[in-house]
Amino acid sequence: MNFLEERIQKDGIVKEGNVLKVDSFLNHQMDIALFKQMGEEWKKRFADANINKILTIEASGIGIACVVAEFFQVPVVFAKKSKSINIEGEMYIAEVESFTHRCKNQVIVSKAFLGPGDRVLIIDDFLANGCALQGLISIVSQAGASVEGIGIAIEKGFQSGGRVIRNLGYHLESLAIVDAMDAKTGKITFGKQ
Amino acid sequence: MNFLEERIQKDGIVKEGNVLKVDSFLNHQMDIALFKQMGEEWKKRFADANINKILTIEASGIGIACVVAEFFQVPVVFAKKSKSINIEGEMYIAEVESFTHRCKNQVIVSKAFLGPGDRVLIIDDFLANGCALQGLISIVSQAGASVEGIGIAIEKGFQSGGRVIRNLGYHLESLAIVDAMDAKTGKITFGKQ
Repeated sequence: MNFLEERIQKDGIVKEGNVLKVDSFLNHQMDIALFKQMGEEWKKRFADANINKILTIEASGIGIACVVAEFFQVPVVFAKKSKSINIEGEMYIAEVESFTHRCKNQVIVSKAFLGPGDRVLIIDDFLANGCALQGLISIVSQAGASVEGIGIAIEKGFQSGGRVIRNLGYHLESLAIVDAMDAKTGKITFGKQ
Repeated sequence: MNFLEERIQKDGIVKEGNVLKVDSFLNHQMDIALFKQMGEEWKKRFADANINKILTIEASGIGIACVVAEFFQVPVVFAKKSKSINIEGEMYIAEVESFTHRCKNQVIVSKAFLGPGDRVLIIDDFLANGCALQGLISIVSQAGASVEGIGIAIEKGFQSGGRVIRNLGYHLESLAIVDAMDAKTGKITFGKQ
Protein backbone atom coordinates (compact mmCIF):
# COMPACT_ATOMS: atom_id res chain seq x y z
CA MET A 1 0.00 0.00 0.00
CA ASN A 2 1.18 3.52 -0.74
CA PHE A 3 0.92 6.46 1.67
CA LEU A 4 -2.59 7.46 0.57
CA GLU A 5 -4.00 3.93 0.63
CA GLU A 6 -2.58 3.53 4.13
CA ARG A 7 -4.23 6.77 5.23
CA ILE A 8 -7.58 5.76 3.72
CA GLN A 9 -7.33 2.38 5.44
CA LYS A 10 -6.57 4.10 8.76
CA ASP A 11 -8.94 7.10 8.71
CA GLY A 12 -11.48 6.48 5.93
CA ILE A 13 -14.98 5.42 6.94
CA VAL A 14 -17.13 3.24 4.71
CA LYS A 15 -20.85 4.05 4.69
CA GLU A 16 -23.82 2.37 3.05
CA GLY A 17 -24.39 3.31 -0.60
CA ASN A 18 -20.72 3.11 -1.58
CA VAL A 19 -19.89 6.29 0.30
CA LEU A 20 -16.29 6.64 1.48
CA LYS A 21 -15.88 9.37 4.06
CA VAL A 22 -12.42 10.89 4.07
CA ASP A 23 -13.42 14.20 5.57
CA SER A 24 -10.95 13.99 8.44
CA PHE A 25 -7.98 14.47 6.11
CA LEU A 26 -9.05 15.14 2.51
CA ASN A 27 -12.21 17.12 1.92
CA HIS A 28 -13.41 18.89 5.04
CA GLN A 29 -10.44 18.88 7.37
CA MET A 30 -7.37 18.87 5.15
CA ASP A 31 -3.96 17.39 5.99
CA ILE A 32 -1.52 19.67 4.19
CA ALA A 33 1.47 17.39 4.81
CA LEU A 34 -0.46 14.62 3.02
CA PHE A 35 -1.25 16.98 0.12
CA LYS A 36 2.49 17.66 -0.21
CA GLN A 37 3.18 13.94 -0.48
CA MET A 38 0.52 13.78 -3.20
CA GLY A 39 2.17 16.67 -5.03
CA GLU A 40 5.56 15.00 -4.84
CA GLU A 41 4.11 11.77 -6.22
CA TRP A 42 2.25 13.43 -9.11
CA LYS A 43 5.31 15.47 -9.95
CA LYS A 44 7.13 12.15 -10.46
CA ARG A 45 4.30 10.59 -12.45
CA PHE A 46 3.90 13.64 -14.71
CA ALA A 47 7.61 14.47 -14.86
CA ASP A 48 7.65 14.80 -18.65
CA ALA A 49 4.31 16.52 -19.14
CA ASN A 50 5.58 20.13 -19.12
CA ILE A 51 2.48 21.41 -17.32
CA ASN A 52 1.90 25.18 -17.24
CA LYS A 53 -1.48 25.30 -15.48
CA ILE A 54 -3.51 23.25 -13.02
CA LEU A 55 -7.30 23.11 -13.35
CA THR A 56 -9.58 21.91 -10.58
CA ILE A 57 -13.19 22.35 -9.46
CA GLU A 58 -14.61 23.85 -6.31
CA ALA A 59 -14.69 23.13 -3.49
CA SER A 60 -12.67 20.16 -2.30
CA GLY A 61 -10.32 20.06 -5.28
CA ILE A 62 -8.95 23.53 -4.55
CA GLY A 63 -6.84 22.79 -1.50
CA ILE A 64 -5.16 19.78 -3.05
CA ALA A 65 -4.55 21.64 -6.32
CA CYS A 66 -2.94 24.64 -4.61
CA VAL A 67 -0.50 22.57 -2.57
CA VAL A 68 0.28 20.34 -5.58
CA ALA A 69 0.87 23.43 -7.73
CA GLU A 70 3.94 24.29 -5.67
CA PHE A 71 5.67 21.20 -7.08
CA PHE A 72 4.88 22.25 -10.66
CA GLN A 73 5.35 25.99 -10.00
CA VAL A 74 2.26 26.89 -12.02
CA PRO A 75 -0.96 28.80 -11.28
CA VAL A 76 -4.21 27.06 -10.41
CA VAL A 77 -7.59 27.83 -11.97
CA PHE A 78 -10.70 26.47 -10.33
CA ALA A 79 -13.97 25.92 -12.17
CA LYS A 80 -16.89 27.53 -10.36
CA LYS A 81 -20.19 25.80 -9.89
CA SER A 82 -22.55 28.69 -10.49
CA LYS A 83 -22.58 32.08 -12.10
CA SER A 84 -21.35 34.81 -9.81
CA ILE A 85 -22.05 38.47 -10.42
CA ASN A 86 -18.31 39.00 -10.00
CA ILE A 87 -17.59 36.99 -13.13
CA GLU A 88 -18.28 38.91 -16.26
CA GLY A 89 -17.27 38.45 -19.84
CA GLU A 90 -17.02 35.29 -21.76
CA MET A 91 -16.76 31.96 -20.05
CA TYR A 92 -16.31 28.33 -20.91
CA ILE A 93 -19.33 26.40 -19.62
CA ALA A 94 -19.91 22.69 -19.02
CA GLU A 95 -22.80 20.78 -17.49
CA VAL A 96 -21.86 18.58 -14.55
CA GLU A 97 -24.05 16.17 -12.65
CA SER A 98 -23.20 15.79 -8.99
CA PHE A 99 -23.40 12.34 -7.42
CA THR A 100 -23.05 13.78 -3.93
CA HIS A 101 -25.63 16.52 -4.19
CA ARG A 102 -27.94 14.83 -6.71
CA CYS A 103 -28.28 17.83 -8.96
CA LYS A 104 -26.96 19.33 -12.17
CA ASN A 105 -24.59 22.26 -12.08
CA GLN A 106 -23.05 24.45 -14.66
CA VAL A 107 -19.35 24.79 -14.12
CA ILE A 108 -17.63 27.81 -15.57
CA VAL A 109 -14.13 29.06 -16.23
CA SER A 110 -13.32 32.54 -17.45
CA LYS A 111 -11.86 32.58 -20.95
CA ALA A 112 -9.18 34.93 -19.64
CA PHE A 113 -7.47 32.14 -17.73
CA LEU A 114 -7.35 29.22 -20.16
CA GLY A 115 -6.46 29.28 -23.84
CA PRO A 116 -4.67 27.63 -26.78
CA GLY A 117 -1.17 26.54 -25.84
CA ASP A 118 -2.01 25.83 -22.22
CA ARG A 119 -0.78 22.42 -21.08
CA VAL A 120 -3.16 21.49 -18.31
CA LEU A 121 -2.97 19.11 -15.37
CA ILE A 122 -6.46 18.43 -13.98
CA ILE A 123 -6.56 17.69 -10.24
CA ASP A 124 -9.52 16.50 -8.18
CA ASP A 125 -10.16 14.63 -4.97
CA PHE A 126 -12.57 11.95 -6.24
CA LEU A 127 -13.33 10.14 -9.48
CA ALA A 128 -16.45 8.00 -9.52
CA ASN A 129 -18.78 8.22 -12.51
CA GLY A 130 -16.53 10.88 -13.98
CA CYS A 131 -19.08 13.64 -14.58
CA ALA A 132 -17.06 16.41 -12.97
CA LEU A 133 -13.92 15.30 -14.79
CA GLN A 134 -15.72 15.14 -18.14
CA GLY A 135 -16.87 18.72 -17.58
CA LEU A 136 -13.33 19.87 -16.86
CA ILE A 137 -11.99 18.08 -19.95
CA SER A 138 -14.74 19.73 -22.01
CA ILE A 139 -13.65 23.14 -20.71
CA VAL A 140 -9.99 22.51 -21.58
CA SER A 141 -11.10 21.37 -25.02
CA GLN A 142 -13.28 24.47 -25.53
CA ALA A 143 -10.22 26.56 -24.67
CA GLY A 144 -8.12 24.86 -27.35
CA ALA A 145 -5.74 23.80 -24.58
CA SER A 146 -4.48 20.26 -24.00
CA VAL A 147 -5.04 17.88 -21.09
CA GLU A 148 -1.50 16.66 -20.37
CA GLY A 149 -2.45 14.76 -17.26
CA ILE A 150 -5.18 14.00 -14.76
CA GLY A 151 -4.35 13.49 -11.09
CA ILE A 152 -7.06 12.02 -8.87
CA ALA A 153 -6.64 11.31 -5.17
CA ILE A 154 -9.24 8.55 -4.85
CA GLU A 155 -10.79 6.68 -7.76
CA LYS A 156 -13.77 4.42 -7.20
CA GLY A 157 -12.61 1.56 -9.42
CA PHE A 158 -16.02 -0.11 -9.31
CA GLN A 159 -17.58 2.83 -11.14
CA SER A 160 -16.97 3.51 -14.81
CA GLY A 161 -15.42 6.99 -14.70
CA GLY A 162 -11.76 5.99 -14.71
CA ARG A 163 -12.14 3.29 -17.35
CA VAL A 164 -13.87 5.66 -19.76
CA ILE A 165 -11.18 8.32 -19.29
CA ARG A 166 -8.34 5.80 -19.82
CA ASN A 167 -10.11 4.37 -22.90
CA LEU A 168 -10.17 7.87 -24.32
CA GLY A 169 -6.37 7.91 -24.06
CA TYR A 170 -5.88 10.36 -21.21
CA HIS A 171 -2.96 9.97 -18.83
CA LEU A 172 -4.87 9.44 -15.60
CA GLU A 173 -2.97 8.85 -12.36
CA SER A 174 -5.14 7.96 -9.36
CA LEU A 175 -3.17 7.70 -6.13
CA ALA A 176 -5.64 5.23 -4.64
CA ILE A 177 -8.12 3.05 -6.53
CA VAL A 178 -10.86 1.60 -4.37
CA ASP A 179 -12.03 -1.62 -6.01
CA ALA A 180 -14.48 -2.62 -3.31
CA MET A 181 -15.66 -1.55 0.10
CA ASP A 182 -17.93 -3.09 2.66
CA ALA A 183 -19.95 -0.87 4.98
CA LYS A 184 -20.61 -3.76 7.39
CA THR A 185 -16.98 -4.74 7.99
CA GLY A 186 -15.35 -1.44 6.99
CA LYS A 187 -13.03 -3.39 4.68
CA ILE A 188 -11.56 -1.47 1.73
CA THR A 189 -9.93 -3.30 -1.18
CA PHE A 190 -7.50 -1.34 -3.33
CA GLY A 191 -6.86 -2.11 -6.99
CA LYS A 192 -3.45 -2.11 -8.63
CA GLN A 193 -2.34 1.01 -10.44
CA MET B 1 2.83 49.65 -0.74
CA ASN B 2 3.37 46.03 0.27
CA PHE B 3 3.51 43.11 -2.16
CA LEU B 4 -0.25 42.52 -2.15
CA GLU B 5 -1.19 46.17 -2.56
CA GLU B 6 1.22 46.36 -5.49
CA ARG B 7 -0.36 43.32 -7.07
CA ILE B 8 -3.90 44.69 -6.60
CA GLN B 9 -2.78 48.00 -8.13
CA LYS B 10 -1.28 46.14 -11.09
CA ASP B 11 -3.87 43.43 -11.79
CA GLY B 12 -7.02 44.35 -9.88
CA ILE B 13 -9.94 45.75 -11.83
CA VAL B 14 -12.41 48.20 -10.31
CA LYS B 15 -16.04 47.78 -11.39
CA GLU B 16 -19.15 49.80 -10.67
CA GLY B 17 -20.88 49.00 -7.38
CA ASN B 18 -17.66 48.80 -5.34
CA VAL B 19 -16.65 45.54 -6.96
CA LEU B 20 -12.93 44.80 -7.03
CA LYS B 21 -12.07 41.99 -9.42
CA VAL B 22 -8.93 40.11 -8.43
CA ASP B 23 -9.81 36.90 -10.21
CA SER B 24 -6.58 36.79 -12.22
CA PHE B 25 -4.51 36.04 -9.13
CA LEU B 26 -6.64 35.56 -6.02
CA ASN B 27 -10.03 33.92 -6.40
CA HIS B 28 -10.44 32.24 -9.78
CA GLN B 29 -6.94 31.91 -11.14
CA MET B 30 -4.68 31.62 -8.12
CA ASP B 31 -1.04 32.70 -7.88
CA ILE B 32 0.50 30.21 -5.48
CA ALA B 33 3.77 32.15 -5.15
CA LEU B 34 1.72 35.13 -3.97
CA PHE B 35 -0.15 32.92 -1.47
CA LYS B 36 3.23 31.84 -0.08
CA GLN B 37 4.21 35.49 0.45
CA MET B 38 0.92 35.96 2.27
CA GLY B 39 1.64 32.93 4.45
CA GLU B 40 5.09 34.24 5.30
CA GLU B 41 3.65 37.62 6.24
CA TRP B 42 0.85 36.21 8.42
CA LYS B 43 3.30 33.86 10.11
CA LYS B 44 5.23 36.98 11.17
CA ARG B 45 2.13 38.88 12.26
CA PHE B 46 0.75 35.94 14.26
CA ALA B 47 4.14 34.71 15.48
CA ASP B 48 3.05 34.42 19.11
CA ALA B 49 -0.45 33.09 18.57
CA ASN B 50 0.38 29.37 18.87
CA ILE B 51 -2.19 28.41 16.23
CA ASN B 52 -3.12 24.73 15.91
CA LYS B 53 -5.84 24.94 13.23
CA ILE B 54 -6.82 27.15 10.33
CA LEU B 55 -10.50 27.70 9.53
CA THR B 56 -11.72 29.08 6.22
CA ILE B 57 -14.87 29.01 4.08
CA GLU B 58 -15.45 27.63 0.65
CA ALA B 59 -14.61 28.28 -2.07
CA SER B 60 -12.03 30.99 -2.58
CA GLY B 61 -10.65 30.91 0.96
CA ILE B 62 -9.52 27.31 0.63
CA GLY B 63 -6.53 27.77 -1.66
CA ILE B 64 -5.08 30.61 0.38
CA ALA B 65 -5.66 28.75 3.65
CA CYS B 66 -3.95 25.56 2.43
CA VAL B 67 -0.81 27.34 1.23
CA VAL B 68 -0.71 29.52 4.36
CA ALA B 69 -1.12 26.40 6.55
CA GLU B 70 2.30 25.20 5.47
CA PHE B 71 3.86 28.11 7.37
CA PHE B 72 1.96 27.20 10.53
CA GLN B 73 2.18 23.42 9.98
CA VAL B 74 -1.42 22.91 10.99
CA PRO B 75 -4.46 21.33 9.31
CA VAL B 76 -7.12 23.39 7.55
CA VAL B 77 -10.87 23.01 8.03
CA PHE B 78 -13.19 24.68 5.57
CA ALA B 79 -16.77 25.61 6.37
CA LYS B 80 -19.19 24.28 3.77
CA LYS B 81 -22.01 26.35 2.36
CA SER B 82 -24.74 23.74 2.20
CA LYS B 83 -25.59 20.41 3.71
CA SER B 84 -24.05 17.52 1.84
CA ILE B 85 -25.31 13.95 2.14
CA ASN B 86 -21.68 13.02 2.83
CA ILE B 87 -21.69 14.98 6.06
CA GLU B 88 -23.44 13.18 8.84
CA GLY B 89 -23.50 13.60 12.56
CA GLU B 90 -23.48 16.76 14.50
CA MET B 91 -22.39 20.01 12.99
CA TYR B 92 -21.83 23.60 13.99
CA ILE B 93 -24.12 25.81 11.92
CA ALA B 94 -24.10 29.55 11.24
CA GLU B 95 -26.20 31.73 8.95
CA VAL B 96 -24.20 33.78 6.45
CA GLU B 97 -25.48 36.38 4.04
CA SER B 98 -23.54 36.59 0.77
CA PHE B 99 -22.91 40.01 -0.74
CA THR B 100 -21.69 38.46 -3.99
CA HIS B 101 -24.53 36.04 -4.52
CA ARG B 102 -27.27 38.01 -2.77
CA CYS B 103 -28.57 35.09 -0.78
CA LYS B 104 -28.41 33.53 2.66
CA ASN B 105 -26.45 30.37 3.23
CA GLN B 106 -26.00 28.06 6.13
CA VAL B 107 -22.36 27.31 6.69
CA ILE B 108 -21.47 24.15 8.52
CA VAL B 109 -18.45 22.56 10.15
CA SER B 110 -18.42 19.03 11.51
CA LYS B 111 -18.07 18.91 15.27
CA ALA B 112 -15.40 16.26 14.77
CA PHE B 113 -12.89 18.82 13.51
CA LEU B 114 -13.18 21.74 15.92
CA GLY B 115 -13.43 21.65 19.68
CA PRO B 116 -12.42 23.15 23.03
CA GLY B 117 -8.71 23.83 23.20
CA ASP B 118 -8.37 24.58 19.49
CA ARG B 119 -6.50 27.82 18.83
CA VAL B 120 -7.85 28.95 15.50
CA LEU B 121 -6.56 31.24 12.78
CA ILE B 122 -9.39 32.27 10.45
CA ILE B 123 -8.30 32.94 6.85
CA ASP B 124 -10.38 34.42 4.03
CA ASP B 125 -9.85 36.30 0.80
CA PHE B 126 -12.22 39.24 1.36
CA LEU B 127 -13.71 41.16 4.26
CA ALA B 128 -16.46 43.64 3.42
CA ASN B 129 -19.58 43.71 5.61
CA GLY B 130 -18.14 40.83 7.59
CA CYS B 131 -21.05 38.38 7.39
CA ALA B 132 -18.93 35.39 6.40
CA LEU B 133 -16.37 36.19 9.07
CA GLN B 134 -19.05 36.60 11.75
CA GLY B 135 -20.37 33.16 10.79
CA LEU B 136 -16.91 31.62 11.16
CA ILE B 137 -16.36 33.31 14.53
CA SER B 138 -19.75 32.00 15.66
CA ILE B 139 -18.69 28.47 14.69
CA VAL B 140 -15.41 28.73 16.61
CA SER B 141 -17.35 30.02 19.58
CA GLN B 142 -19.90 27.18 19.37
CA ALA B 143 -16.95 24.77 19.41
CA GLY B 144 -15.57 26.27 22.61
CA ALA B 145 -12.39 27.02 20.70
CA SER B 146 -10.64 30.41 20.58
CA VAL B 147 -10.06 32.78 17.66
CA GLU B 148 -6.36 33.61 18.03
CA GLY B 149 -6.14 35.55 14.82
CA ILE B 150 -7.93 36.54 11.63
CA GLY B 151 -6.01 36.91 8.38
CA ILE B 152 -7.77 38.63 5.49
CA ALA B 153 -6.21 39.22 2.09
CA ILE B 154 -8.28 42.25 1.06
CA GLU B 155 -10.41 44.31 3.42
CA LYS B 156 -12.84 46.86 2.06
CA GLY B 157 -12.09 49.61 4.54
CA PHE B 158 -15.10 51.66 3.47
CA GLN B 159 -17.44 48.91 4.70
CA SER B 160 -18.01 48.24 8.37
CA GLY B 161 -16.87 44.61 8.68
CA GLY B 162 -13.30 45.21 9.78
CA ARG B 163 -14.15 47.99 12.24
CA VAL B 164 -16.75 45.85 14.00
CA ILE B 165 -14.34 42.92 14.31
CA ARG B 166 -11.54 45.12 15.68
CA ASN B 167 -13.96 46.78 18.11
CA LEU B 168 -14.81 43.33 19.39
CA GLY B 169 -11.14 42.88 20.26
CA TYR B 170 -10.09 40.35 17.67
CA HIS B 171 -6.57 40.39 16.26
CA LEU B 172 -7.37 41.07 12.61
CA GLU B 173 -4.58 41.39 10.07
CA SER B 174 -5.65 42.45 6.59
CA LEU B 175 -2.80 42.45 4.09
CA ALA B 176 -4.45 45.14 1.96
CA ILE B 177 -7.11 47.60 3.09
CA VAL B 178 -8.94 49.31 0.24
CA ASP B 179 -10.17 52.66 1.51
CA ALA B 180 -11.61 53.86 -1.78
CA MET B 181 -11.86 52.87 -5.40
CA ASP B 182 -13.08 54.61 -8.49
CA ALA B 183 -14.57 52.58 -11.32
CA LYS B 184 -14.17 55.48 -13.78
CA THR B 185 -10.44 56.04 -13.26
CA GLY B 186 -9.55 52.61 -11.88
CA LYS B 187 -7.81 54.33 -8.98
CA ILE B 188 -7.48 52.33 -5.76
CA THR B 189 -6.59 54.02 -2.46
CA PHE B 190 -5.10 51.87 0.28
CA GLY B 191 -5.48 52.61 3.98
CA LYS B 192 -2.73 52.26 6.53
CA GLN B 193 -2.56 49.06 8.55
